[in-house]
Amino acid sequence: MVESSSDEILEDADKSDIAFLVVGDPFGATTHTDLVLRAKELSIPTKSIPNASILNAIGATGLQLYNFGQTVSMVFFTDNWRPASFYDRIRENASIGLHTLMLLDIKVKEQSLENMARGRKIYEPPRYMTVAQCAQQMLEIEEEKGGKVYNEDSLAIGCARVGAEDQRFACGTLKELCDIELGPPLHSLVLLGKRAHELERDYIRLFAVNEGTFDRSWKKYHDTK
Amino acid sequence: MVESSSDEILEDADKSDIAFLVVGDPFGATTHTDLVLRAKELSIPTKSIPNASILNAIGATGLQLYNFGQTVSMVFFTDNWRPASFYDRIRENASIGLHTLMLLDIKVKEQSLENMARGRKIYEPPRYMTVAQCAQQMLEIEEEKGGKVYNEDSLAIGCARVGAEDQRFACGTLKELCDIELGPPLHSLVLLGKRAHELERDYIRLFAVNEGTFDRSWKKYHDTK
Repeated sequence: MVESSSDEILEDADKSDIAFLVVGDPFGATTHTDLVLRAKELSIPTKSIPNASILNAIGATGLQLYNFGQTVSMVFFTDNWRPASFYDRIRENASIGLHTLMLLDIKVKEQSLENMARGRKIYEPPRYMTVAQCAQQMLEIEEEKGGKVYNEDSLAIGCARVGAEDQRFACGTLKELCDIELGPPLHSLVLLGKRAHELERDYIRLFAVNEGTFDRSWKKYHDTK
Repeated sequence: MVESSSDEILEDADKSDIAFLVVGDPFGATTHTDLVLRAKELSIPTKSIPNASILNAIGATGLQLYNFGQTVSMVFFTDNWRPASFYDRIRENASIGLHTLMLLDIKVKEQSLENMARGRKIYEPPRYMTVAQCAQQMLEIEEEKGGKVYNEDSLAIGCARVGAEDQRFACGTLKELCDIELGPPLHSLVLLGKRAHELERDYIRLFAVNEGTFDRSWKKYHDTK
């Protein structure tokens, strides 16, 4: 992990050129900002090269990147840990009509509690949250909180393997997406903001799970004329 | 322009492979979404390749991409045309504490009114809005509207040639940025949201125009502890 190895990464970087490759854009998260800050403290010059990332590749859904609000993360719920800060962030975006991109949890190199307790370096198989799991957790939290930030018939787009040859999009109500199967990871989800453009509608309707439910929800939530 | 030439671009695209190169990400704006929609209507398969764009390259400021709201455009004001919709968009972002990326006007292949009237294809020299011009127009509109969405001492980051070898950032109050000179285009500007992280502060303070005014404004608007 970058966080714990920044000393190692920066070791000798004052004497020789060190390249550091990342998935997506180097500044998509705080981790790499921190690395650059540490380099600056050590007077080590840095240079970064921007790259495509899910934050703009999501434009392939046909939704306008201008109309996205803050990006949120959704983690796997457990029996006693159900972090719901995403709900407040979505509420904020929704309050001004913006789309919300949700990045879904990835569990790699996780140890079971037992293995951790015994200090055994045995790791669980990697887990990647699916669009269906995300939609389910979203509806669970809406039911708990009752803030009417979104509903079972709110429109969202399930996205799989964005940018890859076999990328897939499925636009449907959250209820429909609870049962969607989009294949291998990585998945992400976009909850539509109220302020959606007709051109966006025409585009995302092309991958509607069900055009009837799509049209009904669009009319109910997005047809502001 | 893509808008007026889509028929030409799509001509014969059903028979042979047509590649279409764009600056930035292909779906950064509606223009290319429209092109893909037209292709789909003609049953022409399309494939797009995501690319870095200002929307994520702006992460090089050290501001967290997660914490940006909707992106807005700022156009050159004229004597009788001062579109201020950007102000409402900023207000919305600010109301939930988010940063706002402002993309600045580019005037290329513009005709003077006289040349246009006479049908002369003589074009004015290209013009690119600077950070200073943007900051000035922002303050003019705040003065007109009086909505206290931002002030002379609100912090913003002037950005020039993001992603290029000679990219430059200058963080200062809007008043300071009214006089900033950042060199050749393209410029853009980020108005800081209230919900800024300490790590963001440490990073952007490195290119503060004046550390004293930076610290005062940070304390006034962003130090929420």
